[in-house]
Amino acid sequence: MTTINIIGAGNVAYHLMDAISNVKELSLQNIYVRNPEKSGLDKKFDAILISDIAKLQKADLTIISITDLAIAEVSGQIPFTNQLVVHTSGTTPMTVLNTKNRRGVFYPLQTFSKSKKNVNFKKIPMCLETENRPDYEILEHVAHLLSDSVHHINEEQRKSLHVAAVFVNNFVNHLYAIGAEICEEHDVPFDILKPLIEETTNKIRTLSPKEAQTGPAIRRDELTIQKHLEFIEEPLIRTIYKNLTASIQQQNDKEL
Amino acid sequence: MTTINIIGAGNVAYHLMDAISNVKELSLQNIYVRNPEKSGLDKKFDAILISDIAKLQKADLTIISITDLAIAEVSGQIPFTNQLVVHTSGTTPMTVLNTKNRRGVFYPLQTFSKSKKNVNFKKIPMCLETENRPDYEILEHVAHLLSDSVHHINEEQRKSLHVAAVFVNNFVNHLYAIGAEICEEHDVPFDILKPLIEETTNKIRTLSPKEAQTGPAIRRDELTIQKHLEFIEEPLIRTIYKNLTASIQQQNDKEL
Repeated sequence: MTTINIIGAGNVAYHLMDAISNVKELSLQNIYVRNPEKSGLDKKFDAILISDIAKLQKADLTIISITDLAIAEVSGQIPFTNQLVVHTSGTTPMTVLNTKNRRGVFYPLQTFSKSKKNVNFKKIPMCLETENRPDYEILEHVAHLLSDSVHHINEEQRKSLHVAAVFVNNFVNHLYAIGAEICEEHDVPFDILKPLIEETTNKIRTLSPKEAQTGPAIRRDELTIQKHLEFIEEPLIRTIYKNLTASIQQQNDKEL
Repeated sequence: MTTINIIGAGNVAYHLMDAISNVKELSLQNIYVRNPEKSGLDKKFDAILISDIAKLQKADLTIISITDLAIAEVSGQIPFTNQLVVHTSGTTPMTVLNTKNRRGVFYPLQTFSKSKKNVNFKKIPMCLETENRPDYEILEHVAHLLSDSVHHINEEQRKSLHVAAVFVNNFVNHLYAIGAEICEEHDVPFDILKPLIEETTNKIRTLSPKEAQTGPAIRRDELTIQKHLEFIEEPLIRTIYKNLTASIQQQNDKEL
């Protein structure tokens, strides 16, 4: 049985608790939150909820899942030493963690929202890093119990994944929002675009994104590009259209 | 039985022929291509392949599916008059079609590639426009036999859909390509991002894109944004990051 503490009660922390509590080889020991009453976690999981970090007990693994800027400070308040303590941040180096414990990173690469309660953790890529091999084995053991997709990812790689994730998740979603806004302004249901959105994602299951690229930019169809630019009224959206068109063409030129 | 002519042998034309030939209430009559030998269409469909447009026979519906700039000229070469003739272009007005026939638009909103042979036409939104009601009924009848998603879309709406489609399809795919490039440069498998990509698309089945927006831009997490901008080396990609971040924040401000 591997014992685990969770520090924090945000989206990632919540989904981790949920996933851990469903694995019989893992035992949720302490959950530390500043306001246990407000957290809504009381009696939700079979674990001891604490509001005073000085009461945190030693565990095989302590996971800090809080806002990036507070990780260093909170890791310094942990009462025990020489245990494995990890954070879940994609943008924070392992080395911000206080040196009194053995350090690591346990970064689940997914977009979590509290409103979506059911998350299939098995499919979420777990990106792991530790300072030494024995600790990696502990982290890997826990990660494999939660997910089918476990990866050794160092700091530089994790940074690159976080930046790439902003492009393929946050920015892609914003392009959907731009599409929805254009539809709304012209009295067309956005739902008409949904099969196209699904097909766009389906295509890259079998093709690389470069191979899958279609449209006026890569065809260098200047007539259509000009018509589109005249159609778009918002200056910032027009700039985004121009830059993405230029970037498609630049990437294509690099290939040749 | 409704008889249909197809003019052209590109991706859209090919997938239309394929879909039409699978519906027993529809009869593919003539297929006009300039080079029947090169087209690879010989004996593929139960239709008369012609290379001389003067031999095109009257049909209930003639569909012109060729490059936008040639639609006007080819529609003028059709030997018969006063029949229903439509094009399949998202960016071309119905009125470029020669007035000697009754005009319309039959625009399937999907990304087609010849390499992907199996297309589920039933799910493809068909965007229809005609000059008069009886012609609309003919077009609607054919569209309903091919697809479960049939919409009356006027020229302005069609233009907006075409622009929106560039954002949610071409540009989204390019953001995938940027993500793949960042991964490649830092020796991370792009596949790690695929569950996140799928979840991004899944989310907008139940939430509007605005509601689904997450990430450093909407959180106004300037520290992360600055870290990301320092990480990105390519100036054009950095500009795209800045513009999309500004656009997410601008759209969010409009809401407030």
